[in-house]
Amino acid sequence: MFKHEKHLLQEVKIDAPNPNYAAMLQEQLGGPQGELKAALQYLSQSFRINDHEIKDLFLDIAAEELAHMEMVATTVNMLNGHTPDANRATVGNVQAHVLSGLSPMLTNASGQLWTAAYVNCTGDLAADILSNIAAEQRAKVVYEYLHRQINDKGVRDTIDFLLNREEAHNSLFREAFNRIQDTGSQKDWGVTEDSKLYFNLSTPGKYFDLNNPKPTSFNNPNPQNDRPMN
Amino acid sequence: MFKHEKHLLQEVKIDAPNPNYAAMLQEQLGGPQGELKAALQYLSQSFRINDHEIKDLFLDIAAEELAHMEMVATTVNMLNGHTPDANRATVGNVQAHVLSGLSPMLTNASGQLWTAAYVNCTGDLAADILSNIAAEQRAKVVYEYLHRQINDKGVRDTIDFLLNREEAHNSLFREAFNRIQDTGSQKDWGVTEDSKLYFNLSTPGKYFDLNNPKPTSFNNPNPQNDRPMN
Amino acid sequence: MFKHEKHLLQEVKIDAPNPNYAAMLQEQLGGPQGELKAALQYLSQSFRINDHEIKDLFLDIAAEELAHMEMVATTVNMLNGHTPDANRATVGNVQAHVLSGLSPMLTNASGQLWTAAYVNCTGDLAADILSNIAAEQRAKVVYEYLHRQINDKGVRDTIDFLLNREEAHNSLFREAFNRIQDTGSQKDWGVTEDSKLYFNLSTPGKYFDLNNPKPTSFNNPNPQNDRPMN
Amino acid sequence: MFKHEKHLLQEVKIDAPNPNYAAMLQEQLGGPQGELKAALQYLSQSFRINDHEIKDLFLDIAAEELAHMEMVATTVNMLNGHTPDANRATVGNVQAHVLSGLSPMLTNASGQLWTAAYVNCTGDLAADILSNIAAEQRAKVVYEYLHRQINDKGVRDTIDFLLNREEAHNSLFREAFNRIQDTGSQKDWGVTEDSKLYFNLSTPGKYFDLNNPKPTSFNNPNPQNDRPMN
Amino acid sequence: MFKHEKHLLQEVKIDAPNPNYAAMLQEQLGGPQGELKAALQYLSQSFRINDHEIKDLFLDIAAEELAHMEMVATTVNMLNGHTPDANRATVGNVQAHVLSGLSPMLTNASGQLWTAAYVNCTGDLAADILSNIAAEQRAKVVYEYLHRQINDKGVRDTIDFLLNREEAHNSLFREAFNRIQDTGSQKDWGVTEDSKLYFNLSTPGKYFDLNNPKPTSFNNPNPQNDRPMN
Amino acid sequence: MFKHEKHLLQEVKIDAPNPNYAAMLQEQLGGPQGELKAALQYLSQSFRINDHEIKDLFLDIAAEELAHMEMVATTVNMLNGHTPDANRATVGNVQAHVLSGLSPMLTNASGQLWTAAYVNCTGDLAADILSNIAAEQRAKVVYEYLHRQINDKGVRDTIDFLLNREEAHNSLFREAFNRIQDTGSQKDWGVTEDSKLYFNLSTPGKYFDLNNPKPTSFNNPNPQNDRPMN
Repeated sequence: MFKHEKHLLQEVKIDAPNPNYAAMLQEQLGGPQGELKAALQYLSQSFRINDHEIKDLFLDIAAEELAHMEMVATTVNMLNGHTPDANRATVGNVQAHVLSGLSPMLTNASGQLWTAAYVNCTGDLAADILSNIAAEQRAKVVYEYLHRQINDKGVRDTIDFLLNREEAHNSLFREAFNRIQDTGSQKDWGVTEDSKLYFNLSTPGKYFDLNNPKPTSFNNPNPQNDRPMN
Repeated sequence: MFKHEKHLLQEVKIDAPNPNYAAMLQEQLGGPQGELKAALQYLSQSFRINDHEIKDLFLDIAAEELAHMEMVATTVNMLNGHTPDANRATVGNVQAHVLSGLSPMLTNASGQLWTAAYVNCTGDLAADILSNIAAEQRAKVVYEYLHRQINDKGVRDTIDFLLNREEAHNSLFREAFNRIQDTGSQKDWGVTEDSKLYFNLSTPGKYFDLNNPKPTSFNNPNPQNDRPMN
Repeated sequence: MFKHEKHLLQEVKIDAPNPNYAAMLQEQLGGPQGELKAALQYLSQSFRINDHEIKDLFLDIAAEELAHMEMVATTVNMLNGHTPDANRATVGNVQAHVLSGLSPMLTNASGQLWTAAYVNCTGDLAADILSNIAAEQRAKVVYEYLHRQINDKGVRDTIDFLLNREEAHNSLFREAFNRIQDTGSQKDWGVTEDSKLYFNLSTPGKYFDLNNPKPTSFNNPNPQNDRPMN
Repeated sequence: MFKHEKHLLQEVKIDAPNPNYAAMLQEQLGGPQGELKAALQYLSQSFRINDHEIKDLFLDIAAEELAHMEMVATTVNMLNGHTPDANRATVGNVQAHVLSGLSPMLTNASGQLWTAAYVNCTGDLAADILSNIAAEQRAKVVYEYLHRQINDKGVRDTIDFLLNREEAHNSLFREAFNRIQDTGSQKDWGVTEDSKLYFNLSTPGKYFDLNNPKPTSFNNPNPQNDRPMN
Repeated sequence: MFKHEKHLLQEVKIDAPNPNYAAMLQEQLGGPQGELKAALQYLSQSFRINDHEIKDLFLDIAAEELAHMEMVATTVNMLNGHTPDANRATVGNVQAHVLSGLSPMLTNASGQLWTAAYVNCTGDLAADILSNIAAEQRAKVVYEYLHRQINDKGVRDTIDFLLNREEAHNSLFREAFNRIQDTGSQKDWGVTEDSKLYFNLSTPGKYFDLNNPKPTSFNNPNPQNDRPMN
Repeated sequence: MFKHEKHLLQEVKIDAPNPNYAAMLQEQLGGPQGELKAALQYLSQSFRINDHEIKDLFLDIAAEELAHMEMVATTVNMLNGHTPDANRATVGNVQAHVLSGLSPMLTNASGQLWTAAYVNCTGDLAADILSNIAAEQRAKVVYEYLHRQINDKGVRDTIDFLLNREEAHNSLFREAFNRIQDTGSQKDWGVTEDSKLYFNLSTPGKYFDLNNPKPTSFNNPNPQNDRPMN
């Protein structure tokens, strides 16, 4: 079960309202690389995980992504200011001004409603962890784009925090992968002829070959973590 | 540009029509881990890639995924048989019987229409390649689920081929990652305090730690490919 | 921020796996009247609420709906059993068998992906509370439909608990409405001529009239609660 | 069946074309609180209603909402002016300029396509009427937001009319509720222990209690209407 | 404005309830070739039409499609029977049993929610009429599929009526096209070199050529109608 | 199968970056009348076509539409320039600046994600070809809107080429229609009373009649092509 505490995971501030940037920041609230997607992806995957250590990791991070979502939404809310004025909010979607009364919304920067099509869950631990690693990397990239388009000190600090947390999650998911790397969809990799061929279908050019395919394996940055710490 | 050849990448056969399984196989035609998604994701990403070797790889694989899509669709078409009869097609969506005249459709097994929300494209090579590795792993998992629920020899052979090709693509994307692993969103990894913390938000349990986060790095199965072969 | 505890809000049990009913129960996980919708609607609305008592109520209930979502998902997971077998899962969507490896999904009973289009948030407290009252009433109705289509004792107990909790939320939202009933969109009700007219546009028949329109006002079941208890 | 008359329910005028405001006003044509949603929600619900008085009310209002939709669309059409010029239409979606040739569209202000996910229909009269009361309240709120962001006298008059009509519908739906308040999902309210508990899951704070839950009951502004007038 | 009359455009009957077929018939209520789509497409297009004769035709047909929608929905409602029982409703979506209390819904046969993405409106009369001709032809095809999968005499009569009406609309739209065939997007057809080339991109095979492209022109079945009749 | 060649079907150029116009041009990449829709519609339809001449035509054009998609995407990519700056990209969606790193995306001009709801496929050749004729006409109209809103010489040349190619496809689809005009849904046209009636449901006005409905038949601009050329 979830319990809520009123204080945010980390305090958020803004220098001044900025409705245009509020619309842009919506991307990480209700967009495909945003916090809601991350939280619901890891939560969805967790329901069928048997490995209690990895299940705990997924739920630790899912809970944190919900907390990030609150931080982003609170920042959007402050940036939206106090007066609906779509005519001056020329960037991105104008839903805050005509629909939500300046409340943050479950949409991306252009007003596309959040959809569960963003969430990947296969029931295979290797595939799901790889999905999460990719999701965290994309989330970092979007925060980088948002960071460089705002000068507001408060907003930059919040983005900086969130960006670094996604990096931390990414590293943790890779450690989790190392623990289960010989299971499920990782088994019997590259044993057929078909799995070793390269089809050169775009011409000109052929710059890769595939002599000896192996299942995914990350270099392990934290060898001391190869064994659980409990 | 694309040119089309009438023959399939590999011939497909079925033992007998099977409308229920046709609906199930729709998953890899118009579902989130299906061939259309793969083709359009790699194609979308390719438009802004400067590295001509990696751009070529993405387009080689995108073209192949289009060819896979044809194989899946041709198989669905044969499995749908010759008579619309939704009353006997009790599994999954019935659109082939009431809408498409037994043509394959751009939907998943339950009739959800394909959406570009399945496609991830960030313009950052590291993030995009990680997205593709995860996508290929998920595609393999779905083919495994489909394989175990059909006895038709022809269909199994086709699924087997496709599953192994996804594995090959997966291995190739990892080689591509190795070439660009120090660029873009991979840089300056784990340098802040925030990127090294573990927030233990789901209790009880804490089984991971994060002492020394490093950017993603795959073990290299094909060291001879570290340098381009052209 | 949210913290997660591993134990459920209330333990869930099933008598036996039942993949068909699992698909049906998905309705309250990822459908328009389901737990995810409720949780995200109340959470979304909470971000801009100034009244700290009502904000607390919304967050109490949002957190509980997340806990309900876990209960529903855990039940779906158990009902899905242990073997993907779409051919025997003839009711509703088959995504658990071909896509998610029997994991619960963010879809309704027929496989429609959850969408933020289900969530209403206007920034006006009266409108938002009325939306929530209606949402709770609809959730109760769907649980009634699901209750009557299953004999499994464990599942019925869970549904019974959830149904009654929605009733409790409904009553609480009405108390909240009573506190703010003279504010926002409730003001200046029925003061123009146009707001008092009845247009009889479907013929034959006219069975209503509108002599004296008043703003919404609920009979108060808990008069002792008209003043906050803190 | 429906018959159409060329004249509008009420004439609409504009002072001058205003493509930016046209995009904003799209919200009430194709948005979640707009006229199309209202018309189709009440029409959808009406098909299974047995009570002929309430069925008539739903159809009277559904027909009027279609007439409102025409008024909004006609106004959008005039506001769009005569020359596609997306570069000067900086607010909201630009579809009128690149896709529809300045025709009104079934989208909201930001271009999100109308979806039946906005429509609620449960087959339970109490739940459906509560949904409609909430929908009318939200529609009023959106018209208020739109009203305050335009100075055009003609547009303001139209919005004023529509806003007041939603109020009238709201009052009528409450009268309808009073007639059926002891039926369907209203029965056996608050009889279990679970329906009387308050779970204080967001801390700090607890400002509500639930001693004596009762089914929804509105104060009746029009006692003379408690009996049908036919 | 629209006025509603309680009697249907043509009475509908069923021999017996048939929940499976009810789900299938949903296709023409809320599917891409269904009555709601037709009504809203012609209505949307009508708002900007200046030619008052063609505008009248579009609105005549739009109103009739709304009447068709009522007929389909009323039939679905009767076919749904009296008891929610998803376990026996093995074909198509089960939403009537778990969500709508056996009410007809705005979805297709597999539960996909109706979306305005089905509606085409370009503001160019020639393009819009061609869209409508194609839409009517597709609607006829879907009714043919539905007709051959049911033996119920009442349902077949209704489908037969609707199918023939779509044919009538189709013929009328072609007459309308003949009146405007030299306007808008029909002008200056085939005057450039590029508009006369054939690119043979799928091999083997080339069976068409393009010597003398002309704008679309239908053979006129009703020459006496070349001049308006008013 | 598809093979890809690196060079475009026709070279594209731009005079200068123009992020606002890039967003507008997205309409023909990921919008309802865009190149992706055309390619996937014709490809989807082709899978079940038996007539090898018409199948070849559909695949020739499908392959060309993929090539057009590349041309549009390459142009969007150049127009997006080199610096994400949503604050200066005031027209249409801002996803290129916050999500895709200036890559072209599978969305329309306002950010609505591409959906397979745009694709029509019925399995009836007459209906499908009429759908394609209408689709090509709409694509031409959208290119006309886009052409008149840009002065960039390079962009105008590309639009001009694409617009004329859609015209060529349109003419070819009509020739294909002439070959199959007595088959499938074209048979037994106008033989019932119901198919000859005109319902005058929008008043005032009645300007059409329907004395002698005939199946669709185009005037044949290329009589020498009535027989296949192979």
